[in-house]
Amino acid sequence: MRPAENAQLALLLEVSGTPKPGNVDRERDLPDLRFEDFLAGAVGAGAGLRAAESDSIGIAFERAVEGMADLHGENTQFGALLLLVPLVRAASEGDLSPAGAERVVRNTTVEDAAAFYRAFEHCSVFVSDPPAEWDAVDVRRGAAAIPAVEERGLTLFDVMALGDADDVAREWTGGFERSFRVADRIEELSGPLSDRAATAFCEELARRPDTLVAKKHGEGIARRVSEQVAAFDGNERLLGALARVFVERGINPGTTADVVAAGLFVALERGVEA
Amino acid sequence: MRPAENAQLALLLEVSGTPKPGNVDRERDLPDLRFEDFLAGAVGAGAGLRAAESDSIGIAFERAVEGMADLHGENTQFGALLLLVPLVRAASEGDLSPAGAERVVRNTTVEDAAAFYRAFEHCSVFVSDPPAEWDAVDVRRGAAAIPAVEERGLTLFDVMALGDADDVAREWTGGFERSFRVADRIEELSGPLSDRAATAFCEELARRPDTLVAKKHGEGIARRVSEQVAAFDGNERLLGALARVFVERGINPGTTADVVAAGLFVALERGVEA
Repeated sequence: MRPAENAQLALLLEVSGTPKPGNVDRERDLPDLRFEDFLAGAVGAGAGLRAAESDSIGIAFERAVEGMADLHGENTQFGALLLLVPLVRAASEGDLSPAGAERVVRNTTVEDAAAFYRAFEHCSVFVSDPPAEWDAVDVRRGAAAIPAVEERGLTLFDVMALGDADDVAREWTGGFERSFRVADRIEELSGPLSDRAATAFCEELARRPDTLVAKKHGEGIARRVSEQVAAFDGNERLLGALARVFVERGINPGTTADVVAAGLFVALERGVEA
Repeated sequence: MRPAENAQLALLLEVSGTPKPGNVDRERDLPDLRFEDFLAGAVGAGAGLRAAESDSIGIAFERAVEGMADLHGENTQFGALLLLVPLVRAASEGDLSPAGAERVVRNTTVEDAAAFYRAFEHCSVFVSDPPAEWDAVDVRRGAAAIPAVEERGLTLFDVMALGDADDVAREWTGGFERSFRVADRIEELSGPLSDRAATAFCEELARRPDTLVAKKHGEGIARRVSEQVAAFDGNERLLGALARVFVERGINPGTTADVVAAGLFVALERGVEA
């Protein structure tokens, strides 16, 4: 399969993995977000993922998000696509390694940043308040922030470097460390890939609080979520019960899922056998 | 979404629907065929489905099957793609109706037939023995049968007309009657589309014995399967129990699933709301 296809398959395998406490999976819908929305998101992102093999990173990302949100306007895989687009490019350039991915993101331009801001027009994305001096380039302004981005000469990499409380941004500026770690773990595990993805999700969440949960509910809750998942140590029945509690409380560790999707992609590119 | 994307989504929604006694769904793998194989099949078929919007029907089908089988060489959606490819073309020509679909299939050529035979080289497809006089053009000969196909001047439509014991072929020669009926039913039902697909599957199977089951196990068993599904009349628990029995006995009503995938596509093209 070509890189864009492996990226699409990674999105589908990620959402199929169960149980992943707090997130949508093949057995659990959230009140406002369903398994089927993720299927439609993965299909709609296809053209943007294909563009990521050769077009500008920003344009490819915007197109992927636009396609993802096309059917229902839902944000299902915004963060995952933000990781997958540069990884697809690195793969199609023949160097899917931390160094190869870092080269791709460091080569992004101000035009890539502008396209990234336009992507926020296609669906709603949960983002924290930036520091006051960065208010003019708050991503929630969408395309309206582009003149300020251009004036300051910010590349997409620069924009990501501002988002250090977000673990998707941190992958961009930190050599995709967790994405590659998850890929190693998925290769090491056995069984169906979506089962391995669910295991890797729980392990990653236990290891590090989810930044989407932290932004929505505070860092204390995010830490507690990680401790609870760690305490249940892979017990499927207990994790299923925890899933019900998390869903009731609106606790949705989406950033960890994004990292797992990226790890699945890397593992698929390396030819992992299901 | 463009037609090729709706076709890909139809494949994903079809396999996600549960319970569908005897078939793979999001809760059930078969011993040799898994839910994840169907995800990979839908992803891999994408390029062929896009080709179906404008390329030759036969070439598009061959490409879709080649992509479907790329990762594991499994036949997951051969029959569904044989229905979807002409329906995608009819949709992209702006006439997704029985008449529009019939025009597409009646316009197929000997070259389309040749590509269809080549598609059998990419994965194994269960087919019955043809009558003796058609032995030279038995599809199981794959590309080796092409000289005989060309000599007899058979178009792909002609080849389908030979396959009247197969309900996918019967859709081709009968105006896609069941595909459009399933689309109507899916629009009429409510709830998530994959749930509606599972309901439509059981209703269609109750109404008409599955030709794949008939070819593998005989017409008596195929009739009995339909009677059992009819008797359980939508009771999810009983249908789940039946699913276990069917899987144990290798009873896999795959043709009915193909027709449901086609019906889902038509419903999506008509803008069905999930």
